[in-house]
Amino acid sequence: MSWYQVKGAEADTVISSRIRLARNINGYTFGKRLSAEDAKEILCQVEKALSEDYTRTDMDALSSVSARALVEQHLISPDFASLKAPRALFRNDKKSIYLMALEEDHIRLQCILPGLSLQDAYRLAAECDETLNEALDIAFDDKLGYLTHCPTNLGTGLRASVMLFLPAMTERRMIPSLQHQLQKIGLTIRGMYGEGSAAHGCIYQISNQITLGLSVEDILRNLEDAVGSIITKERALRKNVTDEAALLREDRCRRAEGVLHFAKCISSEEFFSLYRDVKLGICEGIITSITHETLNTLFISVMPAMLVQNESPAPKTALARDVLRAEFIKKALEVKPRG
Amino acid sequence: MSWYQVKGAEADTVISSRIRLARNINGYTFGKRLSAEDAKEILCQVEKALSEDYTRTDMDALSSVSARALVEQHLISPDFASLKAPRALFRNDKKSIYLMALEEDHIRLQCILPGLSLQDAYRLAAECDETLNEALDIAFDDKLGYLTHCPTNLGTGLRASVMLFLPAMTERRMIPSLQHQLQKIGLTIRGMYGEGSAAHGCIYQISNQITLGLSVEDILRNLEDAVGSIITKERALRKNVTDEAALLREDRCRRAEGVLHFAKCISSEEFFSLYRDVKLGICEGIITSITHETLNTLFISVMPAMLVQNESPAPKTALARDVLRAEFIKKALEVKPRG
Repeated sequence: MSWYQVKGAEADTVISSRIRLARNINGYTFGKRLSAEDAKEILCQVEKALSEDYTRTDMDALSSVSARALVEQHLISPDFASLKAPRALFRNDKKSIYLMALEEDHIRLQCILPGLSLQDAYRLAAECDETLNEALDIAFDDKLGYLTHCPTNLGTGLRASVMLFLPAMTERRMIPSLQHQLQKIGLTIRGMYGEGSAAHGCIYQISNQITLGLSVEDILRNLEDAVGSIITKERALRKNVTDEAALLREDRCRRAEGVLHFAKCISSEEFFSLYRDVKLGICEGIITSITHETLNTLFISVMPAMLVQNESPAPKTALARDVLRAEFIKKALEVKPRG
Repeated sequence: MSWYQVKGAEADTVISSRIRLARNINGYTFGKRLSAEDAKEILCQVEKALSEDYTRTDMDALSSVSARALVEQHLISPDFASLKAPRALFRNDKKSIYLMALEEDHIRLQCILPGLSLQDAYRLAAECDETLNEALDIAFDDKLGYLTHCPTNLGTGLRASVMLFLPAMTERRMIPSLQHQLQKIGLTIRGMYGEGSAAHGCIYQISNQITLGLSVEDILRNLEDAVGSIITKERALRKNVTDEAALLREDRCRRAEGVLHFAKCISSEEFFSLYRDVKLGICEGIITSITHETLNTLFISVMPAMLVQNESPAPKTALARDVLRAEFIKKALEVKPRG
């Protein structure tokens, strides 16, 4: 099952944890100047290095809609979807490891898990990394650590990130000050959906900015500590409301639930704010008929490319897509979630 | 059953028909200068004149909330509710005749029926009027007809009115031109709820302005003809929409239905627009789980005074009333409508 289909730890505030390791192979040009022949060789080498649990998907074989659908699931980067050069995505059967071969680096090894699970995600990524290190001549310098195309990834090559749901901090306009504080400790936060608009999903990604001069353990601990205090803060803010505010919140959450069940068309922008209100409703025990997993799966499934990728003929207008989205949601909410 | 609990003819455009006859008794002062003693005598005379099917309610015995609740059901005028002098409402068991004794005139005899039923309403009112004419010395002049306190009611003393639901004409901003046309033929139209605001109920009352020099038959026929062509126009406009407009209308209607089922608090202003969208949804076959009678009953029942009249303790804040309203609506929609 994909990361969004499973409930993780701290599901009320943490949507997912992600580890990304950047690696390159000695003897090949770094970056875009790599020849097509060398590119094919690298893809071959990576495929051989990985166990049979992995499925290779050559990106040129995919339609642009399918490629965008992978971006929407956070499995590949937007750049990786749009590049024209040879490149491939390798996925393991358990759907935890997603390896982009020939993105900015030769290898971008990723592990995504639901909820707060940075250590588990790192452990799984490190296992795969070990396999690659054994089979391939990975570029490593005793002083600098892992060599990467962009110097900002040098050293550990590690980008650890956590996707957070912060409706209370957003409502109280605390994100700019949080951003300022995180910067001081080498972390960065960015809004994911509809930031600054009415359709604000209140979803943010926090990740480390520094990869060099710190151990993997330090990087993970630093991020985990910061996320831990953000969770505590967010939860306290959600609790600390007047009776009237709680009532209005309940009203907002329930209305959003009603829209999911009743609307005839729903735009993706509107869905961000519905997601926010329904998720908060689940967190606060206001909404009991929808689970976090169902809602997260819905969130990914109704993204523009995910929504239409299996539709034939594809809906032609924005309105037709919005109708399809509303129908999809209604159907998904009829199905009882897994135990 | 009250008028709003029964489905009438042309329920998609006509909510109710109303006949009002103004009558006065010879030998008593007309209007506000009437002494308290004379007032009591009149109330006694009217009570005696009416059959045992009628129940007398002395207005001074009612709480202000109960009086306002009668206004909200359109059974008495706002003036009648707030006057301080002795006055009484007489209602028949069948809940079709409502007689205000000592409003502006000594007697204001009203019959309200659901849907388009002016002739039936007039017939019932005329029956009661005959009873009164036999028992009382009703002020009548061979040249002027029935004498009334205000000269605008002289002659027939008849005000015939029809309450219409005109969402399509409203959306196309055709009401001002309709008003102009109606004026030319001695009719008047006025908006009933939330006119000019976002919470527009699209409910209008059309009635005759002229009572003198025309026969009852002429007045009724003139109004019926006008209403007939308005119904035709409104229906044609509702049908004449693009596929996209029809889809967006369906979306709006279904969302309103969703709000009725899911919202935690609903203001009376919001209810006007929900009523409009849900009623249109019923008319267009979009909403099948709610009937016109249920919705009309709901409309009357969630009016501010109707809503709280049986609540103890009465809700203290506007928000508490809005919560009560939402709860009432949810409960009412769970109950299956009468066959």
